[in-house]
Amino acid sequence: MAKATGATRLPKKDYEARVPALRGALVQMQVALQHAPFPVLLVVAGDEASGKGDVVNLLNAWLDPRGVETFAFHEPTDEERERPPMWRYWRCLPPRGRMAIYAGGWSADALRADPRTPGEVADFAATLRRLAHFEGLLADGGALIVKVWLQLAKVAQRERLLALESDPDTAWRVTAADWKNHRDYDRLARLSEQMRRATHKPAAPWRMIDATDPRTRNLAVADHILARFHAHLAAQKKIAPASKPARLVPLRPAGLRRLHALPLDQTLGETDYESKRDKWLGRLNQAVRSAAERGRSIVWVFEGWDAAGKGGAIRRLTSALDARDFRVIPIAKPTDEEKVHHYLWRFWRHVPRAGRVTIYDRSWYGRVLVERLEGFCRESEWKRAYAELNDFEAQLGAHGIIVLKFWLHLSKDEQLRRFRHREDTDYKQHKINAEDWRNRRKWAAYETAVGDMLALTDRPAAPWHLVPADNKRFARLEILKTSCKQIAAALES
Amino acid sequence: MAKATGATRLPKKDYEARVPALRGALVQMQVALQHAPFPVLLVVAGDEASGKGDVVNLLNAWLDPRGVETFAFHEPTDEERERPPMWRYWRCLPPRGRMAIYAGGWSADALRADPRTPGEVADFAATLRRLAHFEGLLADGGALIVKVWLQLAKVAQRERLLALESDPDTAWRVTAADWKNHRDYDRLARLSEQMRRATHKPAAPWRMIDATDPRTRNLAVADHILARFHAHLAAQKKIAPASKPARLVPLRPAGLRRLHALPLDQTLGETDYESKRDKWLGRLNQAVRSAAERGRSIVWVFEGWDAAGKGGAIRRLTSALDARDFRVIPIAKPTDEEKVHHYLWRFWRHVPRAGRVTIYDRSWYGRVLVERLEGFCRESEWKRAYAELNDFEAQLGAHGIIVLKFWLHLSKDEQLRRFRHREDTDYKQHKINAEDWRNRRKWAAYETAVGDMLALTDRPAAPWHLVPADNKRFARLEILKTSCKQIAAALES
Repeated sequence: MAKATGATRLPKKDYEARVPALRGALVQMQVALQHAPFPVLLVVAGDEASGKGDVVNLLNAWLDPRGVETFAFHEPTDEERERPPMWRYWRCLPPRGRMAIYAGGWSADALRADPRTPGEVADFAATLRRLAHFEGLLADGGALIVKVWLQLAKVAQRERLLALESDPDTAWRVTAADWKNHRDYDRLARLSEQMRRATHKPAAPWRMIDATDPRTRNLAVADHILARFHAHLAAQKKIAPASKPARLVPLRPAGLRRLHALPLDQTLGETDYESKRDKWLGRLNQAVRSAAERGRSIVWVFEGWDAAGKGGAIRRLTSALDARDFRVIPIAKPTDEEKVHHYLWRFWRHVPRAGRVTIYDRSWYGRVLVERLEGFCRESEWKRAYAELNDFEAQLGAHGIIVLKFWLHLSKDEQLRRFRHREDTDYKQHKINAEDWRNRRKWAAYETAVGDMLALTDRPAAPWHLVPADNKRFARLEILKTSCKQIAAALES
Repeated sequence: MAKATGATRLPKKDYEARVPALRGALVQMQVALQHAPFPVLLVVAGDEASGKGDVVNLLNAWLDPRGVETFAFHEPTDEERERPPMWRYWRCLPPRGRMAIYAGGWSADALRADPRTPGEVADFAATLRRLAHFEGLLADGGALIVKVWLQLAKVAQRERLLALESDPDTAWRVTAADWKNHRDYDRLARLSEQMRRATHKPAAPWRMIDATDPRTRNLAVADHILARFHAHLAAQKKIAPASKPARLVPLRPAGLRRLHALPLDQTLGETDYESKRDKWLGRLNQAVRSAAERGRSIVWVFEGWDAAGKGGAIRRLTSALDARDFRVIPIAKPTDEEKVHHYLWRFWRHVPRAGRVTIYDRSWYGRVLVERLEGFCRESEWKRAYAELNDFEAQLGAHGIIVLKFWLHLSKDEQLRRFRHREDTDYKQHKINAEDWRNRRKWAAYETAVGDMLALTDRPAAPWHLVPADNKRFARLEILKTSCKQIAAALES
């Protein structure tokens, strides 16, 4: 992160000679961006009175405003406060082919904490790590992240505040807080430097720009955006498209061994099941209500073989819940709005509010199952995904959301029996199609992927529960029991 | 609206004999719904202690929860309060092929107002009209709306409350408010009857269901849903698809005359423009800030011929605004999430928060322009749309949102000149394609549609401003001036 270079005043004439070409280049960039496979995120941050707002407005005037949206993060709304802190940023991400400008952005949001006590300082450091991680995640997903820090020396800041105050048109922009921050310049400068150092990564570097002379500053910002864009476009073009792997090699055989060790010959009689079921449904109802009273949300994740009984298990589960408090999100093909965002965006959008429940019928684990297997994403992408998914769940957990993950396991024979039964039963025929049979032929490959998933995403805060599902009654009861116990344990901790 | 029939207790055995077939029929209904061209909205409302929650939960247990979502409207969130009252309902509408259950729904929300003073009574009546209109709009869009009112006599209500209180598992469900409402039974019954009468329309009728016996009640609700669904499915199949009209006949020639009377030979010199522009940009900036300070939002609508300069006009306009406060929404082909909703849904979703600005580059008027012309919707649909669009804007206006609508008018010769210029200018070639030329050949038909739009959607609260746009400078200045004046007028009123 190089220091900004010293200020030299750029004559108006020289500035105006450069602007038309720059504007043209920016609009051409937007045209190229429309067909590019990535979004552009521009963070404009900087010292007090360095002209962040002016730069943001100027860029909006130079760019075609139809392809760009500007966000500023003020006080979170109640819908935002009830979700993990990053949720409000996820909902403001541009789709591929478009650009977002963040006035201050999450960096300014973090600096607003102004940490002083040791506890606050530690929280601040944790926030910075989370932001660095967030930017890394988006950059890994292909996003171009451009971050500029407009730098203004203390003496120049004083001059600028005085100049704003002396003009009746701009005097309203200078508040008492601005002067207070001016007096506090050194401390704030150290804080923002700490922020920049913690979030200065190869994929999302900070560019220091001297803001003493507004004209020089404006040109420098525009030049930097253009340079970053064209370098990124060229680099993205070189990336080979995803392709279908020849054969699946397990990353961690331990997971597959765990899967194979699961006894599938469970039995459970009808009457035995019914009496136990009612008891556990009652307990689950109480557990979920206790969680809601404490403002804790619950996320259920159901994965499993085709015909393993995910739908039936979800129905038993929801029969214990108040319908007003839960949503079931079936994960199938992404919509076109989902396709042009980061693959986690479609899951973030359904994260429940405080005290509510979201049940994902299939989930983000598709990334390391079907997408790995079918070559819908590159090897580097699904390999990276294990850590990304763990982190996503860790964020949910850190916000107090209880995450319950179930893998419904089936023997190959039992699946065949169920497929045939579906084909033979009129009102079940819609539940079976050619793709199910195709997937079945890839059983071994899927099993490898499932094994790796179990080995690499089984974490104390969000463990995988393997459920033997050859016997539907046994499976459903197992899910009820485990859910109750997990929720109770989470509420005690 | 027939009175619910007298209660007869249904023996458990008879009930259980009927349930399996009913559940099967409900799930089959969901399978059929998946491919049906409409959504299902089920409102479950009723007297206190009539078992609304039980019915909603039971339906969720009987249905496949993956195809249904349940909503209850509690206190609006701050994001909801900052928008027109119907916004929170629009965001909870199911897409085609899916079902939503509203526990209490907007009816319960309205009853919560519990009007007493003459002012409150008038507001309540206005709310009911708005709800009836909302349901009519959705039904016209093809939605199936099923509304059941669970009816419980005063004496039965008392019995039910006592029964709930005597069971330790359910005692918590009875609150002091429930007993208060019980004492107030007659008044509340009159109020809810008024609500039902005001919102009982052919397309969204209320069905009274006696809730004295829970089993009879459950079966009656399920039977009613099934009957309504199958009747609706059959009726929808008979509706002929939209087709392209042979030729366009004007509905209201006055609009076309107004368009033709617009003088297009305006001129405005460069220097004259620049001095005036800066003055009006300054005023616009102040006007928008004044509006924001009062929590008033602004919606700009830009319509006009291809190459009329909408983009340029928007850029001049936004150069006067703070980029953090506005969004430009370019309206092109709907996304697939938009396609499966009512045609107004995609516009509702971008309605600005308090003090913010949304600029629509093309808009809901596509319904009566391109969709009418190309036969993307039926004649009955675009004819109905004029009133629907007026009502949408009236709702924005009633919430204090300032609506500014501009039609940028161009001569056919000037359009030709601009098309050729675009083709000849390297960096403008992306702005012209075969479709633009195709649209140009339909000039006369478009003109007729524009005329009808002007005649039928020009209202005092949201007038159309016709802008002669052959001279770009003149057009831009005109838009700035008109916007300033309209905002000032709105803030004074």
